[in-house]
Amino acid sequence: MDDPSPRGVEIERKFVVTALPPEIAEHPGQRIEQGYLAIAPDGVEVRVRRRAGEATLTVKSGPGLVRTEEELEIDERRFDSLWALTEGRRVSKARHELPLGDGLTAELDVYDGAHDGLLTVEIEFPSPEASEAFAPPPWVGREVTGDKRYANQSLALAGRPPADA
Amino acid sequence: MDDPSPRGVEIERKFVVTALPPEIAEHPGQRIEQGYLAIAPDGVEVRVRRRAGEATLTVKSGPGLVRTEEELEIDERRFDSLWALTEGRRVSKARHELPLGDGLTAELDVYDGAHDGLLTVEIEFPSPEASEAFAPPPWVGREVTGDKRYANQSLALAGRPPADA
Repeated sequence: MDDPSPRGVEIERKFVVTALPPEIAEHPGQRIEQGYLAIAPDGVEVRVRRRAGEATLTVKSGPGLVRTEEELEIDERRFDSLWALTEGRRVSKARHELPLGDGLTAELDVYDGAHDGLLTVEIEFPSPEASEAFAPPPWVGREVTGDKRYANQSLALAGRPPADA
Repeated sequence: MDDPSPRGVEIERKFVVTALPPEIAEHPGQRIEQGYLAIAPDGVEVRVRRRAGEATLTVKSGPGLVRTEEELEIDERRFDSLWALTEGRRVSKARHELPLGDGLTAELDVYDGAHDGLLTVEIEFPSPEASEAFAPPPWVGREVTGDKRYANQSLALAGRPPADA
């Protein structure tokens, strides 16, 4: 959900979260650590990620080129070794999946580390109509759909957007 | 030999080659293709390499940090996919290993592609004394030991140094 394919059919909306909803207690988060090893001027990015004990190294093409994404599984030793090279280019967070009714799920990300205090939520919809009809729950704040400052890469490199600091 | 560890004990000298020695005919080259996916401002580099049918993805730390190097084997399909992302950041060459006598071996690199016409040679020595006593054969030209413009990364990104163009 973090990196929808530009050619994909995913319909998603993303919001800043103003307060943690009480139901988060019933849905413990899964820790996600993502660090960027290097990003080329043409947008090729190389990152490592660990989620639920599974670690990967991913190479992605930049925007505007034929889309390429190669994901290599790596073991814990390699992850630790490579993670050390991502200092200053990291995002870490806990992801909580909360049912919203109507078959919708909120992916609520509680950032820590350099982005401590940032809370965002993404919701995927089955159709454009469902997306438009969505009535956000009271803990959902400003919409940031399509705002690249909230993408993982931008958060990792540029830090938390000042508007929410 | 291309990337001696700064902490290693390798004693190497590197020269530009002015003309191909005749004995190269007896020592067919092994093709080396190396492309950079991305390089971070702190020097972390991610490259793919294929030599003698073996392909690897390597992540190296930048200078000045605790030295880290992780090499992952990748299959041909992945190599081809990732190679496509290195356009404009490549070095390809044939490496010929020529015996020089005294147990020394010349690693003679014949570049092609964007560096067509560039010829370099590296020789590793067993001791500082052997390095100092080395009498280069007549086809060996100007010494470029320690000249970073002749390192793979610099050749790939900045192209052939103008002095030899």
